[in-house]
Formats: sequence, structure tokens, C-alpha cells
Amino acid sequence: MKNDTITPMTTLSPQPYKGTRDWYPEDKAVQNYIFATWKKTVEQFGFKEYGAPLLEPLEVYAAKSGDELAGEQTYAFTDRGDRTVAIRPEMTPTVSRMVAARRQELPYPARLYSIANFMRYERPQRGREREFWQLNVDTFGADDVAAEAETLLLADEIMKAFGASTNMYEIRVNSRELIEEMTRQYLGLDEVQAGQLVRLIDRKNKLPAEVFVASVREILETDEKVARLEAVFSAESIETLPEGLAGGAAAGRVRELFVMLSSLGVSSVRFDVTLMRGLDYYTGTVFEVFDVDPENNRSLFGGGRYDGLVGMFGVEPVSAVGFAPGLTTTELFLRSHNLLPDLRATVDMYVASVGDTVLQTLQLAATLRSRGISVETDTTGRKFDKLIKMAEKKGATEIVFVGANEIESGEYKAKNLTTGEERQVA
Amino acid sequence: MKNDTITPMTTLSPQPYKGTRDWYPEDKAVQNYIFATWKKTVEQFGFKEYGAPLLEPLEVYAAKSGDELAGEQTYAFTDRGDRTVAIRPEMTPTVSRMVAARRQELPYPARLYSIANFMRYERPQRGREREFWQLNVDTFGADDVAAEAETLLLADEIMKAFGASTNMYEIRVNSRELIEEMTRQYLGLDEVQAGQLVRLIDRKNKLPAEVFVASVREILETDEKVARLEAVFSAESIETLPEGLAGGAAAGRVRELFVMLSSLGVSSVRFDVTLMRGLDYYTGTVFEVFDVDPENNRSLFGGGRYDGLVGMFGVEPVSAVGFAPGLTTTELFLRSHNLLPDLRATVDMYVASVGDTVLQTLQLAATLRSRGISVETDTTGRKFDKLIKMAEKKGATEIVFVGANEIESGEYKAKNLTTGEERQVA
Repeated sequence: MKNDTITPMTTLSPQPYKGTRDWYPEDKAVQNYIFATWKKTVEQFGFKEYGAPLLEPLEVYAAKSGDELAGEQTYAFTDRGDRTVAIRPEMTPTVSRMVAARRQELPYPARLYSIANFMRYERPQRGREREFWQLNVDTFGADDVAAEAETLLLADEIMKAFGASTNMYEIRVNSRELIEEMTRQYLGLDEVQAGQLVRLIDRKNKLPAEVFVASVREILETDEKVARLEAVFSAESIETLPEGLAGGAAAGRVRELFVMLSSLGVSSVRFDVTLMRGLDYYTGTVFEVFDVDPENNRSLFGGGRYDGLVGMFGVEPVSAVGFAPGLTTTELFLRSHNLLPDLRATVDMYVASVGDTVLQTLQLAATLRSRGISVETDTTGRKFDKLIKMAEKKGATEIVFVGANEIESGEYKAKNLTTGEERQVA
Repeated sequence: MKNDTITPMTTLSPQPYKGTRDWYPEDKAVQNYIFATWKKTVEQFGFKEYGAPLLEPLEVYAAKSGDELAGEQTYAFTDRGDRTVAIRPEMTPTVSRMVAARRQELPYPARLYSIANFMRYERPQRGREREFWQLNVDTFGADDVAAEAETLLLADEIMKAFGASTNMYEIRVNSRELIEEMTRQYLGLDEVQAGQLVRLIDRKNKLPAEVFVASVREILETDEKVARLEAVFSAESIETLPEGLAGGAAAGRVRELFVMLSSLGVSSVRFDVTLMRGLDYYTGTVFEVFDVDPENNRSLFGGGRYDGLVGMFGVEPVSAVGFAPGLTTTELFLRSHNLLPDLRATVDMYVASVGDTVLQTLQLAATLRSRGISVETDTTGRKFDKLIKMAEKKGATEIVFVGANEIESGEYKAKNLTTGEERQVA
């Protein structure tokens, strides 16, 4: 019962679980700043916030997220009721499930967002933790290019809301439909070859050039097809694609998207035919936002159109387009570009008792709070200089001492800890 | 690749995992209102927000949380690195671990809070879900009664911040030290008997009266001790406790606490010697806030002093006092007392294209957003009445139509959906 003197058998480690972080107030302030910036920007576009369960049945991920994510990277386990569940490694299947459950009632296009944590069993490294936080922004029930244009505009606005200038990042855009046309019609590959080629291109930057070239040759089989693929790769815009592709329906849609983005002032965008996005569920436009700083050249986040997921839950399909920026990559981007504002936590007043004045200290604090002022009390009985030091450390704007003299006179002085100015309170 | 036509082998269920909830925007708005009210109130007291990992090693809970929580109620599993981990079932051990890890650097008293989700494997029922959300508020490094008084004042302020009046709830207070004195000195029990008695009293309201009485008799062994316990139980205040207890150190501390609370205007508080709090780690003052509505008579939340937890992590002990209100019980309380405000999600303007005006619609929306207005676009090409209906459903204040006439004249009218008033925009 009263067991504060019992020593546990083994000492427990004060370190957080591998790949996760403790968010002390100064770290949490950065997190909150990023969350608040996301929230404000997406709500300006009419997106409404939702929340979702931490666990899902594992098969939700097995179906469409790709083997790696469902198989090796999930925190999956069997619950006490013998269900195989996973801590969500991403939000897209969950929000698709939620849309399926209310398919008839939702107001379309349904613009939904969430800010939530996820877990993946990956090797922890810079910018990648096992527990991570993401914004998820999705529009359901809008088939038109306008939905994609507003999605990309929103991604661009998020970057600008953090103070990023257009020379710091680049939005690369491709189309899964265009890739389908390229692999099947233009290159004449069968479904298996097409899948192999897509996965290979997706890993292009992780492979030595000669390995990539040899693997391409192996899949395509003929020099003529290799030459055709090279012609595609050399296209830096839709206009410079080989004729057989540039005139197709998929290219037309991409072209329409770029016209809209240009009219909307989204200038950091470019076509990139090698952009694949790893996940299996994308069906149309895909995009990724890259940090163009050579020191920090990495994908910040991405997204695209995935029209097939809602239909997996036993209802008629609902089209969808969205993206998901992560907290950690955003924080790294902001730090490397010096975009993080001063986020020191503050409190308006530090009310400290001097002598036997604990009760009066608490009472004064309560009075000040009732006026909307945030107040932290100190009833430790520490000396003046220690009280001032602590008030400063806690980010207080002013300090008020409650001593016998103040109580007798009923006059309390608030001293500004930066300027030294004093003013009467209460 | 383009696989939106593939039907999965089995249809996935659109229902959330058992004991968890989908938070659609209207539900999330309630959650956000409760979170924001918590946040605002605790920050007025100078508490600073932290965040914490979702997983902890299981032994963190095994050590102090009590057998039921650590053994039967955790979502525990073995990770791919052979560590036995648990999805956090509560925050107290985690925040104690975090304090231990920075024991030297933290500014004391350290006032910390978090709002986070937890999981316990329990039978889902009204007011109890397997995944649940809690505010955790803790003060570390303050031994004095003032820390407990401010903790209870804060609990009271939270209730008032939700609009609760003092006749809706009651804060019951007890002391583990007093219980220790009562069982060991006043009743002369040994440690085993004392533990049995405490656990029995903790379950008092869940047991038939005759079972409780018989079990008490069995533990206490003599009629004389039973009479002594009855004398304790009949005390409705510290003053009316039997003399042997009322004059002790523990009772003195409780008395001091009640004097402070009275001076601070906390009127809904009363002494309850039968209040035990289930968890093993409490060492001093314990309290629980109860809804006194006979229809909804339940414990809303509780807390207390737990001075032994930080020391489990291999450092010198740091005293602690705190509490943790839950989202679900708070929501039930607010609903049953009609205290929830109107939380319909809104958007300032609904900008809808009429005819072939998609691009101009997106452009107008972007212009309006750049002025700080939140704007949702509709480029579906629906008819007027449908557009208006949808704008209303989405909580828009005004609707703007973008047709050929508007584009030609450059004059756009925003129509208020409630009053019908029109005004010029752009």
C-alpha cells in the first residue's frame, strides 16, 4: 500500500522503447506548431477532421498496401480474442473503411483529414522512427482533375504556410495511368513484366546505375524497347514524351492538371515520368514533394489518386485522392532551412511565496487566473534569486512575490523578467 | 498496378475493431472541444504539454500498476526483436520514466500534461472502450500540501470550464497514509491483512452488503476491531474520525488540505474514508470526482499522490501528484447534463462552378483563401438546388456561384445561407 520505499527487483530503464521518442515540452512545442500549421491550412480548404482506431485487422493492409508494409513492417499480433490485428502503419486503408461504412450518408466530395500516430517496424535512422506522426488529407467522391489540382495546391500551400519559398522544394508529378499505357501499349509488356518494371523504376535511385540498366534490359528483352524507354525517360514534360504516349488519354489528363496548377500559381511543380510511389493502391495521378537542398535531398511526402480502396469493404467504389506529410520529415525540412520559429513555452505570471504565505499565494494565483492570466505558483520557499531563476527557466513573463508586507498592504507587484519594469496587480 | 477493378478474395468488414471507435467529423468535433477545454484550463495553471511513446516494455506496468492492469488488461505482445511490449494502458508509469530520464535538468516543481490514447483489453460497455483518451496532469517534485490543493483546484476548474455547476459533481478525498495508520496502528492489522482490507473496501460498492460485512469480519477477526472500523466508516469529516486517527499526522495533512480548498473556493469536496483508488502506486492523498446525478452516478476521474514511481527507474525518488480525466466519461457527463455546446463543423464559403467554369472556381477560391477565408469548392457540375443543399450540409455560411455571367462581369455574389442576404465579393 504505502510502498514508495520498495525497490523493484530489477531497475527499469528510463529510455523510451527503441525507435520511439519522448516528447518533452520543448519537443512537443515543435510538434504542436507543425500540427497547428497543418490544421489551419487544410481547414482553409474546407477539410473536416476525423479520428480513427489505433488497431485494424491485419488483412486490411495485406490486401493493398504492398507486401513489405503488410508483411514485414507491421506491428501485428494476435489479441486475447484470437483476432490478428496490427497497429496502423498508415491511415489510407482506415479512412477508406470509414468512408465505406457511411457510403450513403457522407456529403461528397467528402474532404477529410486527420493527424495521428502510426507504427512501422523499420530500422530507425535519421528522419525515420518506428512511431511516427502524419497528417492525412483525402478527398472522396471527386473524379475530376480539379480534385487533384486542389490537392496539389493544398500541398503547395502547406509548404508556404511553413514559410518555405518555392526554391526550397519541388513537387514531382506522374500518372499511374500513363505508366500503364507506357508499359502495356507503348512497350508491349505483359502484366508480370509491367509490374517488374514499375518496381524496378521505383527503386532506381537506390540501385547502382549499371544494375538498373542491366535489370531493365532483362525485363524489356529487346534493344528497341530499351530505346523506347530511354525516350520516355528523357522527357522532362508531357509535351516532350514520345508521340505514342503524349497523345493518349493519360497524358491529356496530366496536361490538364498542369494547366490548372499554373493558373493557380503552383510554380514548384514538374512532370517526372520515373516517379512511381511504392504503394500498390494508387490508380491515377501520383506526386511527391522533394526538398531540393543538396544537403537534405529527400522526399518530404507524397500522395495520389487511389480509386480502388473503398470498394474493398463490400460497397460500390468511391474515388479518392490524397496525401500524407510526416512530422519528422517536416521538422527536418524546417530545421535545415531555418524555418522554425521561437517556440519556447511560456506562462504569464510566476507567483511565488516568500515566507509562510502559501495559502495567500494560491489565492492570489486563483484570482489572477479568473482574469484569464496563466499563472504558475511556487510554494517551495526557495530564496529570491532561485525563484527568479526558476521563473525565467519556465518562460514566465512576470514574477510576483507574496510576502508578509504584500499581504499586509494588499499591494502586489508584478516584475517583468525581461525589462525589469514593475506594475501593480490585484 | 492499375488495380481498381480487382475484387479482393474476401470482403473486408467496414466496422472498426472491437472496442474502438471511428471518429467522424461530428464526433471528432466533440473530442476536440473536450481536448481544447482541458488544454486551456491546465495551461492557465502553467502546465506544459509533453508527448510519449505508444509502446512501453511490459515490465513497466508489471511493477506497480496492479496485477489486473499489467496481467489481463494490457495489449501486450512480443516484437520482432523479442522484446515484450505493451500498448500503454495508462500514462503514469511513462511520465514517471520520462522524469527519471531527465531528473537533473527538469525545472521543479515540473508541471506536465498530455492528452493521449490508451488501450486496455476490457469488456466494452457504456462509458468504457478498449481504446480510450485521457488527459494526464502531474506535478513532480512538490511534497507540500499546496501541490495537492492546486491539483484539486485544477480538477474543480476543469469541471467548471465545461459549465458544470457545483451541484452536479462531488470530489471525494481520502489519504493512503491515513488508511495505513488506520489498518496498522488503529486496527493493529499485519501487512497482509491490511492489504486485504484495502482491496475489499475498494470493491465495497460492487459487493452485496452481507458479503462485504462477512469478509470484513473474516479479515478483522474480532468484534472489537469491526466496531472500530464501523466508527471510522461513520466519520463524514476528518473531525468526526475516532480520536486515535483524528489526531495523527495523516489526518493533520488532510485537514490542512481542506482548509486550503475552502479558502480557494472549492466547495464540492468532501472527505470519504472508504475511497481507496485501485492502483497500487498511490502513497498519499487520493481523490475521485463523481457525477452525483442519480441516473449517471459514476466516478468521472481520479488521481492522487504517488511518490514512488520515478524511483523505479534507477534514480532518487521524485514526489508526484496528478490525475487523469477520460474523454468518454467526460462526454457522457456533458451529454447527461446538457452541457455540450453546438459543435457543427463550418466553412466560411462554398464556391460552386455552374457550367464549364472549373478553373475560375478554383482561382476564385484561392483568392478568397488568401484573404483568410476558409473555402470549399464544388466542381461537380450539380444543379443549383443540389449545390445549395450540399453547402448547407457542409456547414457553409455563404455560397458563391461561378457561372459564365459572373466571369464576364467579374462580379461574384456571396449569398448567406441562413439569412438569404447577398454581398459582393472579389
